[in-house]
Amino acid sequence: MTELAAVKAALKTQAVETPSWAYGNSGTRFKVFAQQGVPRTPQEKLDDAAQVHAFTGVAPTVALHIPWDKVEDYAALAEHAEDRGVKLGAINSNTFQDDDYRLGSICAPDPAVRRKAVDHLLECVDIMDATGSKDLKLWFADGTNYPGQDDIRARQDRLAEGLAEVYERLGDDQRMLLEYKFFEPAFYTTDVPDWGTAYAHCLKLGEKAQVVVDTGHHAPGTNIEFIVATLLREGKLGGFDFNSRFYADDDLMVGAADPFQLFRIMYEVIRGGGFTPEVAFMLDQCHNIEAKIPAIIRSVMNVQEATAKALLVDRDALVAAQRSGDVLEANAVLMDAYNTDVRPLLREVREEQGLDPDPIAAYRSSGWQEKIVAERVGGEQAGWGA
Amino acid sequence: MTELAAVKAALKTQAVETPSWAYGNSGTRFKVFAQQGVPRTPQEKLDDAAQVHAFTGVAPTVALHIPWDKVEDYAALAEHAEDRGVKLGAINSNTFQDDDYRLGSICAPDPAVRRKAVDHLLECVDIMDATGSKDLKLWFADGTNYPGQDDIRARQDRLAEGLAEVYERLGDDQRMLLEYKFFEPAFYTTDVPDWGTAYAHCLKLGEKAQVVVDTGHHAPGTNIEFIVATLLREGKLGGFDFNSRFYADDDLMVGAADPFQLFRIMYEVIRGGGFTPEVAFMLDQCHNIEAKIPAIIRSVMNVQEATAKALLVDRDALVAAQRSGDVLEANAVLMDAYNTDVRPLLREVREEQGLDPDPIAAYRSSGWQEKIVAERVGGEQAGWGA
Amino acid sequence: MTELAAVKAALKTQAVETPSWAYGNSGTRFKVFAQQGVPRTPQEKLDDAAQVHAFTGVAPTVALHIPWDKVEDYAALAEHAEDRGVKLGAINSNTFQDDDYRLGSICAPDPAVRRKAVDHLLECVDIMDATGSKDLKLWFADGTNYPGQDDIRARQDRLAEGLAEVYERLGDDQRMLLEYKFFEPAFYTTDVPDWGTAYAHCLKLGEKAQVVVDTGHHAPGTNIEFIVATLLREGKLGGFDFNSRFYADDDLMVGAADPFQLFRIMYEVIRGGGFTPEVAFMLDQCHNIEAKIPAIIRSVMNVQEATAKALLVDRDALVAAQRSGDVLEANAVLMDAYNTDVRPLLREVREEQGLDPDPIAAYRSSGWQEKIVAERVGGEQAGWGA
Amino acid sequence: MTELAAVKAALKTQAVETPSWAYGNSGTRFKVFAQQGVPRTPQEKLDDAAQVHAFTGVAPTVALHIPWDKVEDYAALAEHAEDRGVKLGAINSNTFQDDDYRLGSICAPDPAVRRKAVDHLLECVDIMDATGSKDLKLWFADGTNYPGQDDIRARQDRLAEGLAEVYERLGDDQRMLLEYKFFEPAFYTTDVPDWGTAYAHCLKLGEKAQVVVDTGHHAPGTNIEFIVATLLREGKLGGFDFNSRFYADDDLMVGAADPFQLFRIMYEVIRGGGFTPEVAFMLDQCHNIEAKIPAIIRSVMNVQEATAKALLVDRDALVAAQRSGDVLEANAVLMDAYNTDVRPLLREVREEQGLDPDPIAAYRSSGWQEKIVAERVGGEQAGWGA
Repeated sequence: MTELAAVKAALKTQAVETPSWAYGNSGTRFKVFAQQGVPRTPQEKLDDAAQVHAFTGVAPTVALHIPWDKVEDYAALAEHAEDRGVKLGAINSNTFQDDDYRLGSICAPDPAVRRKAVDHLLECVDIMDATGSKDLKLWFADGTNYPGQDDIRARQDRLAEGLAEVYERLGDDQRMLLEYKFFEPAFYTTDVPDWGTAYAHCLKLGEKAQVVVDTGHHAPGTNIEFIVATLLREGKLGGFDFNSRFYADDDLMVGAADPFQLFRIMYEVIRGGGFTPEVAFMLDQCHNIEAKIPAIIRSVMNVQEATAKALLVDRDALVAAQRSGDVLEANAVLMDAYNTDVRPLLREVREEQGLDPDPIAAYRSSGWQEKIVAERVGGEQAGWGA
Repeated sequence: MTELAAVKAALKTQAVETPSWAYGNSGTRFKVFAQQGVPRTPQEKLDDAAQVHAFTGVAPTVALHIPWDKVEDYAALAEHAEDRGVKLGAINSNTFQDDDYRLGSICAPDPAVRRKAVDHLLECVDIMDATGSKDLKLWFADGTNYPGQDDIRARQDRLAEGLAEVYERLGDDQRMLLEYKFFEPAFYTTDVPDWGTAYAHCLKLGEKAQVVVDTGHHAPGTNIEFIVATLLREGKLGGFDFNSRFYADDDLMVGAADPFQLFRIMYEVIRGGGFTPEVAFMLDQCHNIEAKIPAIIRSVMNVQEATAKALLVDRDALVAAQRSGDVLEANAVLMDAYNTDVRPLLREVREEQGLDPDPIAAYRSSGWQEKIVAERVGGEQAGWGA
Repeated sequence: MTELAAVKAALKTQAVETPSWAYGNSGTRFKVFAQQGVPRTPQEKLDDAAQVHAFTGVAPTVALHIPWDKVEDYAALAEHAEDRGVKLGAINSNTFQDDDYRLGSICAPDPAVRRKAVDHLLECVDIMDATGSKDLKLWFADGTNYPGQDDIRARQDRLAEGLAEVYERLGDDQRMLLEYKFFEPAFYTTDVPDWGTAYAHCLKLGEKAQVVVDTGHHAPGTNIEFIVATLLREGKLGGFDFNSRFYADDDLMVGAADPFQLFRIMYEVIRGGGFTPEVAFMLDQCHNIEAKIPAIIRSVMNVQEATAKALLVDRDALVAAQRSGDVLEANAVLMDAYNTDVRPLLREVREEQGLDPDPIAAYRSSGWQEKIVAERVGGEQAGWGA
Repeated sequence: MTELAAVKAALKTQAVETPSWAYGNSGTRFKVFAQQGVPRTPQEKLDDAAQVHAFTGVAPTVALHIPWDKVEDYAALAEHAEDRGVKLGAINSNTFQDDDYRLGSICAPDPAVRRKAVDHLLECVDIMDATGSKDLKLWFADGTNYPGQDDIRARQDRLAEGLAEVYERLGDDQRMLLEYKFFEPAFYTTDVPDWGTAYAHCLKLGEKAQVVVDTGHHAPGTNIEFIVATLLREGKLGGFDFNSRFYADDDLMVGAADPFQLFRIMYEVIRGGGFTPEVAFMLDQCHNIEAKIPAIIRSVMNVQEATAKALLVDRDALVAAQRSGDVLEANAVLMDAYNTDVRPLLREVREEQGLDPDPIAAYRSSGWQEKIVAERVGGEQAGWGA
């Protein structure tokens, strides 16, 4: 197989999971702008996600958020998905939208609140059993807003205890993916603020606990690809929540704010052996002002383009330049791949897969948008918390 | 008058405006936690604000937010306030909570949206005429989320045009206070992102246009006291929106995150001649998880403490050390004031004003909290956007 | 002329000034790593700069730094330059490397130090008269390290007074370019910390005073293209000091850290009418660990590539999408240009100009590097401060 | 023992190690300002450090930096120190000031450079054997400036290998303290950029490897007290390098930039059981523009004041408020201690120890400064790298 053929083959194996909640309305604390045609049910979210997969070919699974996507019959939901060509993916827990969680969930000072939070996580594993999902993705909004508000260390003890109980409940083929976040909604301490904290907990929990890197969850200037390289070296990278940001956790389309960073991340994934199903590639974004389905299609394409460029890096030349200490040449080898226009290559890949080479245009002309705007009238639009 | 007497006298003249919206519920994009006893009407917000003034003695005015505090009869509202010992303060406009404002308000690409926004601002001046408010405080959520989304420069042209129309409408004793903000809710460009942009617009508008410094609206590491000194030197500091932050626009209680910074800001205010009614001291905070009225009392006290420390700086000794180039001594003179425990002094000031020396304790034992929890049942709690 | 021909024509007019000091050694506070073949005299720096122009065709001028490039006979220096195909460019002042400047230069508390600083600046204008340079570029290391160390506002007064004296001395065709910087080497206040401060001073000085944007001199997250758009709108953008950074003022090769940002900046330059000789494009970088001449060639090429992409933006399509409020389409139009591989186009441009299409390879095979390594033995290597 | 007596007793046990290099000249990449009376030898640095201990009573040890403090006879150096009332403390390695280290030291691509670096570290352990030092403090300037320059993961492998060799060489009572730093002098990747990386390496090395927290080595906004709490919980906090910063690694006097943060850190130290000799409290600062010895005295006092405030926190009241979920009261309990003026208490502590209550004034009137200015003429002043 030629090198280019190998690149194409690799691109065809790529899978980017899209999140059910990105199809619904979202916003900032100032305003949630409603859009026409937004799904009103978990099923309608899956319908939209199936469109993204239909046009890109690399978005075969859909992450669920509990309780936002709670249904009576998960087997039926899974069947609904498969009928449309997609599958259910990771189960995302939610321990931040009840009034009980004002001071935290799994780390809260009140034991009854902690019990409620852990019970919710256990319920999520039950749902995983029902849906066949392999990954439980945990993000905790827990933290404090004021110095002194709570005991930093005691909260870590509570976190460890709660995670251990959930870990025990996991089945043999199930994983716990622990996400960290620099800040928000807590504004003084966050209980899992950085990869080091997530890593330390996962290490103690065991092999089924892995760290998730959300690309918007770091302090300004943080070198994310370094973290990716380090977690892969430690065998603890469970996956990504992709999005992009200029400032904080802006949740813009992945690749929109700093496409070069996304390329560098994908390069470290590939170099570190992380381009496998063991590392989950998921989107976690908010399309506050732009049309949602095409924004997600575009995001998937951005991941593809960064991956294609990363696959094109001439690694032999790179290693040779690095070993010889030629700073400029090593940088040039990397930039040579980045500066390549990979869109023609990806159009070819799509055509070889029987897809339209231009997924955005294909979606726009498919009539789906007009259809959902016309049909999804009445009922309550899905949104964060809905 | 002894020096200490002068400090006390100055502290007695201080006035901190509290914002009507801080008495209502607020939150993050993830969750608004409801609290018991929260006001349901503009009148109830004023009732709460009157409590803050009753116990601190330095919070005589209340800022309104339109349309959140829209009423039929502003004269009656003003009378309601005065009956309770407070007055109506600045009018804050709101051009971010209608679906029309998805792509901006006064800077939006659609002229109809801009017209609507400017009309709202003009209406705010009408309300100022009715309430006797002197200041129109303008904060625009305008900006873009994605590179290319709109034309950066054209948006400045639209902004200038809209502001000019509103400026023309101001009465002789009315001012326009223009606020800037680093980011949020826009995540790529913000149309008034820094003091320089606000300053440049105010300069062209004329003397009645002044800049407002919100202490949470800067890039990480920004030296806010430098901006205060500069704006005072330029005659363009109109006032403050006080709050504090560890990360972004966290809107914590002023003085909670970095009390030393608040002291330095107050020192520059005093040194630059800004401790006058011409510079408006306003709070703009969100009490997401803590009790609202005592949080505002505490915030007012934090401003008092920082002011007291700033007033205690031995300016002769400071200037002497600065002129002689003695870095350590100059720093020591400033720190000597900062390290002073001014709480006994402020207790004395309060007693001399006939107030309880401990406003928090006095509020807690006043029965007000129990009263509003019991009485404010039913109806819709006020909140951001409510 | 076709559109592509117009793009090529524009690229051929581009001029990027290289700084004499980038050819000498530089480093961090921890270490300056010496390189072989580094210039020992201003003349040898010009020799190296001439190589950059010879291979790129768009680096016709060289910025001088006084006193680093001080010579007896500036006419002879100018002739030396012209003999090698380049010209002398902006004069950069240096008021930070004498022990007298420990507490500042033009803003120092000691009037004798201020006098010395202003005299140096006046001497720089004398040198401009001798060299024919049009631009005096001013960067002040002035600031303080500790709260209280000096009076923030008094320092602004001193700055204004010193600048006014220098401004008066400028000839009819000479400009003063005032640079701002977020921090370093001062760590508490910096006397010209942001574009707003530089702008306010330039505004008072007059039309010959303009602001310089150094791309490494901003707070984390600052939107530089917004500043560019604003300064162009105000008629106050004098030029750029190009470099790139991941953290602070890292002074890496321009375009190395965030090529997408450089593209966005160049787009605003072009859109705002700033792609003219009135806006000076200068490099200001430190090549601490990489070979210097090829690093500068690469930097010039990076500016060319960003410019080419910015010129390729379909502005009609962009404006149409912006006006219609199509966020995704407007972003896509911009990204379409950015994602284009412009290296073939630039190779063509170079060939049409009689240059080698690959400047780096051409330099490497020219023998210049071997020649200077062999010849420049003994003497003292030029470096920051040397 | 009353509570206050316990606080005093604790304060009397405090030990802050001062760094030999802080007594010499330091600066930024732009300029090192020379000061009169600066030491010229390791012995003279110890003489100055002895003054700091003499006036504060809590600075009994002095950290050495190899090779800056290299001597023929370490036993004699230790005796020199003890004759003046101090002892030799931690040994700090230096693998960043040779030209060989241009591309790194222990992580460099060239095995010969790595060998040299590890040999230096082994030599440092030899010196520890000679001086009786217990701690080897490791800070690596290693990293890269450009994407692609070197292989991120391979550098981690090299780091692990080198550290393991040094760890094996440690004696039973010796520790390895591994420092992390966000950036500088490397501007793209740093090989030990955060506590997580240091922690992961220390975990594998074993019990004698511990993490050092330098308070200036974090990304903007990082919550340092959280890291302190976490490392203590993990049993991996080896010590501190104290200093303060507004921007990057400014190396200002500890407590100068954010005294509230220092207090919070000290509170977590005490709460987490870290106020013991097992956690080393060291200064690591640069006194670029201020007088060095009094700056270090002041720094030691700042640590004492923060410690005193942290010891004064009413922990029973704090825990009660935290457990009850009273956010404002819990914050108030903490602030109550912070707002206390502890200077009178510390004056008492000093008097009880037979010291002058005002160390700065006592030093100034001691004649030491005049003496060293008069005597230390000629020779080469010590400085970073000297």
